[in-house]
Amino acid sequence: MTQPIKFYFDLLSQPCRALYMFLEASKIPYEAVSISLMRGEHLSNDFKNNINRFQKVPAIKDEDFKLSESIAIFRYLVREKIVPEHWYPHKGALRARIDEYMEWQHGNMRACCTDYFRQKWLQPKLTNTEPNPEQVAQSEARLNKCLAEFEQHWLKGEKYMITSNITIADLLAICEIDQPKAVGFNPFKNYPRIADWHELTREALEPYYHEANQVIDKIEGKQKEKVLQMKN
Amino acid sequence: MTQPIKFYFDLLSQPCRALYMFLEASKIPYEAVSISLMRGEHLSNDFKNNINRFQKVPAIKDEDFKLSESIAIFRYLVREKIVPEHWYPHKGALRARIDEYMEWQHGNMRACCTDYFRQKWLQPKLTNTEPNPEQVAQSEARLNKCLAEFEQHWLKGEKYMITSNITIADLLAICEIDQPKAVGFNPFKNYPRIADWHELTREALEPYYHEANQVIDKIEGKQKEKVLQMKN
Repeated sequence: MTQPIKFYFDLLSQPCRALYMFLEASKIPYEAVSISLMRGEHLSNDFKNNINRFQKVPAIKDEDFKLSESIAIFRYLVREKIVPEHWYPHKGALRARIDEYMEWQHGNMRACCTDYFRQKWLQPKLTNTEPNPEQVAQSEARLNKCLAEFEQHWLKGEKYMITSNITIADLLAICEIDQPKAVGFNPFKNYPRIADWHELTREALEPYYHEANQVIDKIEGKQKEKVLQMKN
Repeated sequence: MTQPIKFYFDLLSQPCRALYMFLEASKIPYEAVSISLMRGEHLSNDFKNNINRFQKVPAIKDEDFKLSESIAIFRYLVREKIVPEHWYPHKGALRARIDEYMEWQHGNMRACCTDYFRQKWLQPKLTNTEPNPEQVAQSEARLNKCLAEFEQHWLKGEKYMITSNITIADLLAICEIDQPKAVGFNPFKNYPRIADWHELTREALEPYYHEANQVIDKIEGKQKEKVLQMKN
């Protein structure tokens, strides 16, 4: 019998949450290995030498085969394991459109959502300082531009992003949008189609969505408390 | 009989050169449609509405199906056309390693090589100004760090990057490295393994390499003249 894969992750990271939900929803046998980004566990020599030479999460180990980069891991799992077809259809045009999103995402959703999260929360947290209002404002402007493009080009009237079924494009996109959302940005205010799609996608991912989001739900709760305290 | 695909490109762009060489080497029937980036032809409404909503090259049109993002186009061609196996082997581990490179590339080789080219040549050319020496120096430092990582992690003793045959990872990587090289940066000086691999990969891609590189060879020639004039 084959061993379950080892999955190295921190639910603070958006591609880690995407992979966690995918592994759970697809019932791929795996062993969870928690790696704390805030404690810098991904930077240890042990992790570098034995798991991922690039010192990032997510990473997997399947028997002796080590692999990093979330999208490469998705492709590997879809190919090598038994995975429901709807996540990444074999049919040419649908598959190509998902691939197109996964490339577009790098310089857009992933870049903008990560940057906002970093400016607003991660960098201040790591350096014990307050966020720089000017940099946060710049980051917010870029994020708004990106979400407008996302709504315009990727939510075109299908039930989900690409088709009437949920795909890995939806899974990756919702995890990106949840990152700025956790630290005080409202992605729904100006983007009603994003709001509808987000709700539908979240529901399709339950109960794994709730499990995967516990870490950033806590951050979101604390951010809301902070805003309320400032108002009082 | 199926129509040849339409290929929209400018050889100034590194992923366009990669796709050009791939189409030629694989003998995929295509119709070449030149789009001038310097004249802003990718920004026209016609291009936006009829070819690529994201206003970038490369893009393809296969019958009615329009697709952008170079890596998504590579995947589509490999799947839908007849392409020699060595470019992107079906075997799990090799394919996964190529996928890993194509993801790693975004935030590393692609980001650093493009940024250097932009700071050193493109931005000054478009705005008719001289390059900002401080920004070029910063960009060069990032590029050197990236090339050191490329050499360390991706040139590990196989003949080419991933295996004993040339793959799309080699093709994409050489096109990235040629970008800063064209505008005065020497990628071989501190990286002897990159020099060996570059020569081998270039040879494997001839005569298409020479054809694809005519545009940036001209830029490289002019840059060298400029340096000589400054020395005299």
